[in-house]
Amino acid sequence: MTQTQLDLAVIPGDGIGPEVTAEALKVLHKALEGTGLEVKETSYSLGAQHWLETGEALTDETLSDIRGRDAILFGAVGAAPGDTRIPSGILEREILLKLRFSLDHCVNLRPSRLYAGVPTPLANPGDVDFVVVREGTEGPYTGNGGALRVGTPHEIATEVSVNTAYGVERVVRDAFRRAEGRRKKVTLVHKHNVLVHAGHLWKRTVEAVAAEFPGVEHDYLHVDAATIFLVTDPSRFDVIVTDNLFGDILTDLAGAVTGGIGLAASGNINLDGTAPSMFEPVHGSAPDIAGQQKADPTAAILSAALLLDHIGQPEAAERIHAAVQGDVESRVAGQARTTAQVGDAIAARL
Amino acid sequence: MTQTQLDLAVIPGDGIGPEVTAEALKVLHKALEGTGLEVKETSYSLGAQHWLETGEALTDETLSDIRGRDAILFGAVGAAPGDTRIPSGILEREILLKLRFSLDHCVNLRPSRLYAGVPTPLANPGDVDFVVVREGTEGPYTGNGGALRVGTPHEIATEVSVNTAYGVERVVRDAFRRAEGRRKKVTLVHKHNVLVHAGHLWKRTVEAVAAEFPGVEHDYLHVDAATIFLVTDPSRFDVIVTDNLFGDILTDLAGAVTGGIGLAASGNINLDGTAPSMFEPVHGSAPDIAGQQKADPTAAILSAALLLDHIGQPEAAERIHAAVQGDVESRVAGQARTTAQVGDAIAARL
Ligand SMILES: CC(C)[C@H](C(=O)O)[C@@H](O)C(=O)O
Ligand SMILES: CC(C)[C@H](C(=O)O)[C@@H](O)C(=O)O
Repeated sequence: MTQTQLDLAVIPGDGIGPEVTAEALKVLHKALEGTGLEVKETSYSLGAQHWLETGEALTDETLSDIRGRDAILFGAVGAAPGDTRIPSGILEREILLKLRFSLDHCVNLRPSRLYAGVPTPLANPGDVDFVVVREGTEGPYTGNGGALRVGTPHEIATEVSVNTAYGVERVVRDAFRRAEGRRKKVTLVHKHNVLVHAGHLWKRTVEAVAAEFPGVEHDYLHVDAATIFLVTDPSRFDVIVTDNLFGDILTDLAGAVTGGIGLAASGNINLDGTAPSMFEPVHGSAPDIAGQQKADPTAAILSAALLLDHIGQPEAAERIHAAVQGDVESRVAGQARTTAQVGDAIAARL
Repeated sequence: MTQTQLDLAVIPGDGIGPEVTAEALKVLHKALEGTGLEVKETSYSLGAQHWLETGEALTDETLSDIRGRDAILFGAVGAAPGDTRIPSGILEREILLKLRFSLDHCVNLRPSRLYAGVPTPLANPGDVDFVVVREGTEGPYTGNGGALRVGTPHEIATEVSVNTAYGVERVVRDAFRRAEGRRKKVTLVHKHNVLVHAGHLWKRTVEAVAAEFPGVEHDYLHVDAATIFLVTDPSRFDVIVTDNLFGDILTDLAGAVTGGIGLAASGNINLDGTAPSMFEPVHGSAPDIAGQQKADPTAAILSAALLLDHIGQPEAAERIHAAVQGDVESRVAGQARTTAQVGDAIAARL
């Protein structure tokens, strides 16, 4: 990596987004000290406040500006549930999903690792360390579908899941590549006994791509069965590859199993480098605890580590992982720290 | 209830289906002793064997015969995964789903109760006792969708989720009715921030029906968040109402949390009495342990209890529940019993 500047877009967003993003940046800067890589930050104030002031979520102009950056650090967006001024879900769709779709974030990468000492709801979690390769630009997230006779007793509403060979194949190949560098096992999760058309496209694609990776084994689970294994035997998983909606569901469950979504990081990856990738905690804006320095910034900090790994700074990323591991191991149950204190503690360990 | 005969259709099916169904019938007969209700059984041999012999899954003739019965006790269907003679998923779709759709089983009722003494993967499960009212005849299960250019790099596959005011409302009303007789709380689970059209139909319907039930409170969770609560705080739930696919996923997870799907029962309810309701364990045919007397028949036995409750024999149903509770409390970890021994033990407690 000979790049000397990282041109970073920062979208702190709503709720706890700005608080956790501040800590992620703090740690990112510290981790890059001595690498010669300089960070240039451009912050975009997108979210509820901006929507209320301008009526705009994410304009094409802003999007094209963001498109020119090297990478994006994203906090969280979403209005407070009680806020009737903002149509529900609009910020999620018109900022977060618009970014994912416009910037072709086809792989939504979500690692799940149970750090030593982290409390989990499971009695016997075992050794949990897997990654979910969630498809990010297709499935039931495409906004296809519609409604007729809305509000009448004859209303009919449809949602259309769209899946293409092109879209599925690149994600499946990415999953196999990642498995090669890990424990060499890919699990496809779908529901092909009911969702026949999409399911068989996924199954056939996995079979075809698997032939290119003779050293990687693969198996299949229906999504319902996968949730069972996530609580009874999560250590069986290495790389899970799945569609957009199943990935959404499985990764929240995986986050809960590995110590809460306060620790779950994610990367929205543009695989061919035509646009910047985006890194964000799996958790949302949590308006109920916003501005109180109560949020755990670890998920945002680990997302910054994914970012560094992605831009070719794996050593800096590894230092963050080690610092987080040290921090979580030293956490004392019931002892509350502020968001900034957690960020400081992790930065201090670098 | 003045009925003196229960005209029961029995579909043992494949794999462990026949073994667990035999125990369910054993317990059902015992529970009805002294009630004056006589059981007339008609057994239908549907499943892999029948398909291989005849090429038929479920003919219209057989379906119309079943339609004339009072209720259906169902085991499980599904070919062994390695069996290449039977197209994958065909038995599930053309027997199980065909029955659910043809007999208008709009409510798929799935109670989750953690019996004292039952091992659960959770460290601190709390007091778990909720019921999922899963919609059974709509959503992504309708077989809508299709595929173009199959097998080429230009393949596109769609799955269409169909949701109607008629279909959603009857299920939501059933959920509120059940909540009235329980802890008076309904939780809608959906993903309305992404699946806007279907999600808003569900949300609006819950708001409208809730107005008829002022004593029942209600809240909302996105499906991803719901999986988190199922492992961190399952006792927060009383009645969950949700769509067909989300219900499929959540109830497997719920089964795992409350001691495994060896204990999870379900009822496919025809609400207006135009066709028989059907009762089946949530688990599948488990071909790997079929014919070995290794399967736990408790889920099938509890399904028989749901059947008795449904046909107006709540006392007999309660006796089965108590017997199951007694049996699971006395189970000794590591001590294996045959399928028949478990059935005998539960029958003996009646
Ligand atoms: C906010 C929402 C649209 C989003 C999703 O469903 O993808 C979130 O749940 C996530 O997992 O990043
Ligand atoms: C076998 C399959 C079609 C079925 C479903 O998805 O409904 C099963 O998983 C269930 O939950 O009863």
